Amino acid sequence: MKLIRHGQPGQEKPGVILNDQHYDASAFGQDYNEAFFATDGLARLAQFLKENEGKLTQLSGTERLGPPVARPSKIMCIGLNYADHARETGATPPPEPVLFMKSTTAYVGPFDDLVIPKNSVKTDWEVELAVVIGKKASYIEEPDAHEYIAGYALHNDVSEREFQLERSGTWDKGKGCDTFAPVGPFLATPEEIGDVDNLRLWLSVNGQMMQDGTTANLIFKIPFLISYLSQFMTLLPGDIISTGTPAGVGLGMKPPVYLQPGDVVELGIDGLGISRQTVKAYAAH
Amino acid sequence: MKLIRHGQPGQEKPGVILNDQHYDASAFGQDYNEAFFATDGLARLAQFLKENEGKLTQLSGTERLGPPVARPSKIMCIGLNYADHARETGATPPPEPVLFMKSTTAYVGPFDDLVIPKNSVKTDWEVELAVVIGKKASYIEEPDAHEYIAGYALHNDVSEREFQLERSGTWDKGKGCDTFAPVGPFLATPEEIGDVDNLRLWLSVNGQMMQDGTTANLIFKIPFLISYLSQFMTLLPGDIISTGTPAGVGLGMKPPVYLQPGDVVELGIDGLGISRQTVKAYAAH
Repeated sequence: MKLIRHGQPGQEKPGVILNDQHYDASAFGQDYNEAFFATDGLARLAQFLKENEGKLTQLSGTERLGPPVARPSKIMCIGLNYADHARETGATPPPEPVLFMKSTTAYVGPFDDLVIPKNSVKTDWEVELAVVIGKKASYIEEPDAHEYIAGYALHNDVSEREFQLERSGTWDKGKGCDTFAPVGPFLATPEEIGDVDNLRLWLSVNGQMMQDGTTANLIFKIPFLISYLSQFMTLLPGDIISTGTPAGVGLGMKPPVYLQPGDVVELGIDGLGISRQTVKAYAAH
Repeated sequence: MKLIRHGQPGQEKPGVILNDQHYDASAFGQDYNEAFFATDGLARLAQFLKENEGKLTQLSGTERLGPPVARPSKIMCIGLNYADHARETGATPPPEPVLFMKSTTAYVGPFDDLVIPKNSVKTDWEVELAVVIGKKASYIEEPDAHEYIAGYALHNDVSEREFQLERSGTWDKGKGCDTFAPVGPFLATPEEIGDVDNLRLWLSVNGQMMQDGTTANLIFKIPFLISYLSQFMTLLPGDIISTGTPAGVGLGMKPPVYLQPGDVVELGIDGLGISRQTVKAYAAH
């Protein structure tokens, strides 16, 4: 299945993609949130789709999409998980996964504007494969990790490099700015994706390809990451793990290149669609 | 007002403290969560208490307390915000606030057990003054910061030092383990607290005083912290900012001392009550 959420921010309704067309699934009666995943929502949704085959209302395809899963309890990100990216930032690949967290207030839809924060001069991009957790996970063994995966989605782990690296403390300050976590267009359940360890992922700015990698180069693979993170904290249904970015970020250019108002960032992963964000300067509401 | 939440984990009901006695406020009809604070809940609760004076059911006083605010969207913590604590950890006081995040799955009641994670050898304590945000805050000026404060609460920012400092990446890995954020016993609204910049805070382990400080020594004061954090991300109603810990943590002892199963940690802040956690080894459920 491919799950979408459509409508205005904070009022998204559930939907699905069938044969590349968007359909409303409001009649299913539940948002794709923690409670949905915790109560076998994916199986219930599959049953609903079976019972309503041919009966769902097709959407225009131009409606706003929210992130495909409701605001999670946490967004956990893995840093430096592709050797080429670690190299371009001047870091050595870490002996074990690097964890940081993204504020969930950064969480937005796949085609929403990307807002450069006030006083930012180093807003950067990072295409990433995100994993959505399907059930409560604590001290999981690696061979069992697949049972805890609800699906996968495309994520732009937008990063303010000055806030992240030059303003004291952990990376969290430069990772959680508003609009810095566009996720989607859809959540793909595992059976929609062939080999998750062999997906091309890419990102362009104004049509120029900046990142072009493959999940084959992940240093720490997804089952290991789920098992690893679950040793440090309980993962809840709907939680997001973003697995890291390949080479080609702005910070790695010589000289570095950062986003400017008017830039258009486009990104994609095999089987997980394409998202696009237009960069805007911050403007007080 | 002093707000409590009572009942089993995940099923807490609202309550209040009046003349040092616990009262049920279920009839108020709303949990103390993001929606409560966002819709002027504190004023509505004050009105409810006025209208129901003498009519609320008194609780036994032995009921379990949850954290006084429902699970927030985020728990933001300030590191190294007391000069004496920065010194004992070998760090120099930072030029601007150090931010890290605590997973909200760590969030528990003030008298719940403190569970040492599997494979942990360096679980440590940190008494802290926590601020609860009362309304949505983005790019707030310091003189306006007080308008965004719902109240204050006692927090033990429990920390696994090996996970935090020796396991690659940011501090988040050692800060968000399950049960590592006991908050409460109650949320005190600002008028309950005299001068928030002059409160004694202390923590003992098995009756031995380990931390004994005063918020007078905060390097970065609360209005500055709210303004500062709001430059990096939107703060939501119910969000928690924990302001840092004074000297006397286990990591700072020579040699370092860490928590062991059976230890009892007790902590308090003037006007914010006392909490107590019994340390347990992790046991699979």
